[in-house]
Amino acid sequence: MKSILLFITFLFIARCGYGQKIVPSNQPNQTQQKMVERGYGMFIHFGINTFGETEWSDGSIPVGKYNPTNLDCDQWVRVARDAGFRYVLLTTKHHEGFCLWDSKYTDYDVASSPVKTDVVAEVSKACKKYGLEFAIYYSLWDRKDPSYKEKDPEKYIDYMCNQLTELLTDYGPVCELWFDGGWDRKEKDWNLPRVYDLVKKLQPHCAVGVNHTIVLKENERKFALPDSMIVDNKYFFQYFPSDFRLWDPKVAHKSDKKQYLHKGKSYYVPFEHTICISKYWSWFGKRVPQPTRDLDELEELFYWCTDNGNTLVMNIPPDQTGRIREHEANAIINLGHRLGLSLNKPLPTNGRFISMNAPAYTTSVYENDEDKYGASMAVDGGMQTRWAAADTLATLTIELDEKKSFNKISIFEYQDEQYASDGFSNIRTNRIQEYNISILQDGEWKMIYTDNESMGDCKVIRFPQSYHAAKIRLEITKAIAPPSIKEFNVIDFE
Amino acid sequence: MKSILLFITFLFIARCGYGQKIVPSNQPNQTQQKMVERGYGMFIHFGINTFGETEWSDGSIPVGKYNPTNLDCDQWVRVARDAGFRYVLLTTKHHEGFCLWDSKYTDYDVASSPVKTDVVAEVSKACKKYGLEFAIYYSLWDRKDPSYKEKDPEKYIDYMCNQLTELLTDYGPVCELWFDGGWDRKEKDWNLPRVYDLVKKLQPHCAVGVNHTIVLKENERKFALPDSMIVDNKYFFQYFPSDFRLWDPKVAHKSDKKQYLHKGKSYYVPFEHTICISKYWSWFGKRVPQPTRDLDELEELFYWCTDNGNTLVMNIPPDQTGRIREHEANAIINLGHRLGLSLNKPLPTNGRFISMNAPAYTTSVYENDEDKYGASMAVDGGMQTRWAAADTLATLTIELDEKKSFNKISIFEYQDEQYASDGFSNIRTNRIQEYNISILQDGEWKMIYTDNESMGDCKVIRFPQSYHAAKIRLEITKAIAPPSIKEFNVIDFE
Repeated sequence: MKSILLFITFLFIARCGYGQKIVPSNQPNQTQQKMVERGYGMFIHFGINTFGETEWSDGSIPVGKYNPTNLDCDQWVRVARDAGFRYVLLTTKHHEGFCLWDSKYTDYDVASSPVKTDVVAEVSKACKKYGLEFAIYYSLWDRKDPSYKEKDPEKYIDYMCNQLTELLTDYGPVCELWFDGGWDRKEKDWNLPRVYDLVKKLQPHCAVGVNHTIVLKENERKFALPDSMIVDNKYFFQYFPSDFRLWDPKVAHKSDKKQYLHKGKSYYVPFEHTICISKYWSWFGKRVPQPTRDLDELEELFYWCTDNGNTLVMNIPPDQTGRIREHEANAIINLGHRLGLSLNKPLPTNGRFISMNAPAYTTSVYENDEDKYGASMAVDGGMQTRWAAADTLATLTIELDEKKSFNKISIFEYQDEQYASDGFSNIRTNRIQEYNISILQDGEWKMIYTDNESMGDCKVIRFPQSYHAAKIRLEITKAIAPPSIKEFNVIDFE
Repeated sequence: MKSILLFITFLFIARCGYGQKIVPSNQPNQTQQKMVERGYGMFIHFGINTFGETEWSDGSIPVGKYNPTNLDCDQWVRVARDAGFRYVLLTTKHHEGFCLWDSKYTDYDVASSPVKTDVVAEVSKACKKYGLEFAIYYSLWDRKDPSYKEKDPEKYIDYMCNQLTELLTDYGPVCELWFDGGWDRKEKDWNLPRVYDLVKKLQPHCAVGVNHTIVLKENERKFALPDSMIVDNKYFFQYFPSDFRLWDPKVAHKSDKKQYLHKGKSYYVPFEHTICISKYWSWFGKRVPQPTRDLDELEELFYWCTDNGNTLVMNIPPDQTGRIREHEANAIINLGHRLGLSLNKPLPTNGRFISMNAPAYTTSVYENDEDKYGASMAVDGGMQTRWAAADTLATLTIELDEKKSFNKISIFEYQDEQYASDGFSNIRTNRIQEYNISILQDGEWKMIYTDNESMGDCKVIRFPQSYHAAKIRLEITKAIAPPSIKEFNVIDFE
């Protein structure tokens, strides 16, 4: 029996190989391939900030403040399983340095708090129980530990490596490591090669990412916006080595490219999206209940972010009782049901966008700035660009290839945003109130949809049949400000 | 071969029986039973008014105005089939007297118009083709035919009987006859026994209904509101004999009763609901595209109206080209898909309302009028009654039986209505902008849903799990006027 197990282990090792470190390539290595197949993870922000009603803190919140009244890590992962997530990404330590496990190297941790549960242990255990993989977020930036302030930057790297050794040794397989807060030091002071090597030694299959991975020029800290990453071999690693790109909470371009440069060589690097289930983008505000994003928006963001060899982690933060809030659990499980997610099958996809980069026209352009606000911005596949009209009554017309059919439309409306005093969360206001959609067939316009309710953050329209049309036209008949649309997608849904 | 067919015919006749006329009973007869099993029909208003942009006309619109450019009756029935309707109810003649078939008894008909297609023939033929049953609407009131103005009311009844003989002889089986406009004459002048007998002689299985069937007192024309029909053997037939009750576009009470009196005897009479797919209730306005009701509202109205031994016809009017408008076809087919309708299985049901008549409380009542606007009005099963608050910030709390589970909520919000100049169609404005729903479990309130988008005409909330709770609470945190709710239903969905 033992020999059979050994043989199976041998086969497994032979198949997977050890040391899946990034090397120059134009295709994903096995670690990246596995990461993309996982594709959809639950991101859990929980810690001392949860009790401070704050996004970040500086290490001064006393450890006694961490005091969940009904901590239930099993519930977190049960919700993740019910919602169809493939992995759970846990903030083991945020910028303030508070550790969700009993670390030998600090007392600013759960073991010194009123509720001593080792949250890292509980979550990794629950992941095993429910068949999910386990991933770790760890802040590079540490506003608490004295070593961080020492002149020799390696002192803190020692601290980090000690803690990472704990995390990567004591809690079973870790599929992903998400590093954050790199902006607080020069890149070279993070000694990433040392850290990366340690991770790969302890967890050969762990994918490593560092927030704000890519910059416009080598050795200059000017981050490349995900929306601009549509050309191979143009942008550069800031953080090397690392296995995937990050920039929360930005959404990559529909034509996101994967080849990035480091010292003259080209590497394949997928993008992991990070978004919040809360409509307000806030994971820490607890006092006022926050509505979740609508199912339509969740659905389209899911498709957009898990498409094209990229991945998505969705932030669903437990509250001060230590449980995921019921209304957020309901929303994300409903999404899983709508998408038919299952651990046993690949993630679903959205079908072909037949409107991508099609000729587009409009009745007016804000400030007559065609380059910035022209109609083409609504079909360019970029979420950071948008069509904006000059009048509230506006029309957007897109030329289609009549040979291509479609049966779904998704519209990401631009919203006016007001940031909350925390500087992070925001409230969004929609503009479009009434509108209709027509298609041009055999020289005649035929209206296929009309609505007099607010378009909302994202509108999905499904048709019970497939259409072919020479043009499609969105006519806005009522808006509280000149309409603006980030993406208007005409989709041949599978 | 012939003898086998004769034998099958004999068996069929023996099984169904002839002359399914209404008799005193406390259960449906076979004709009524079949009607309720059909349950869901498409109502088609089409005719000369379609070209006059008017609900009613008086017979003065010249026959030449009837001129569909692309008449396609097959499309009407194809849409009905695709949407899961069981029968098509066609307005063969509306109040102005224009006939959709070639009637020997008038020239105010399609045969004298520019487009001579016999629409009754085409629709009945298409129904056969697509496996649907065929039903007929016929206006008693006739503002055109000279016989209607004669002193002897029987002269017009002769005309009607001649036309009904055409309709019930030449177009195959007719499952239902919908009489309208009775208000224009005294009941006795319609000689319903003669008309009813004729119908049953020509089409023994045809169910006959007359609009505004039931009155509060025998021989007095005070219509009984569908919402008040919650007591057996209290109200009276105005129009007798007839097989089902009508009052468009009212919605019956959830506890709708079926026993009604005529000359001291009690009869079983189901109710057929009539509603419009247009959010504006208008079937004739064509110039401005009208949004359809939301899927949520269509779904809940479907369940409500086809429940409890009653039926629903949904008005989906073709336009001036002679085709059902694409956006309306899409909406109703999407509803059929959502409900999983199929000719081969019974209509789906909504599950148990565990909130029906439960104790309910609120923070304020409009004008302190508990009897009219109290919280209990939101759980009384009546669509014409409503809870109304005195403040925009309001809470509605309902006591539940903790032993009973639920997994769905539907809310019919009251709307302010503005009638259009046509006196029939209206525009509705919602009040509730932001709200959340909590449940009381083990002495603690737990929020299970929150939203910051307008509640809309009808809001359906589905939960991915079943809850048990001692209480449920709707908290409205933003409204443009004091909130008012017709029905708040807590449902154990099957």
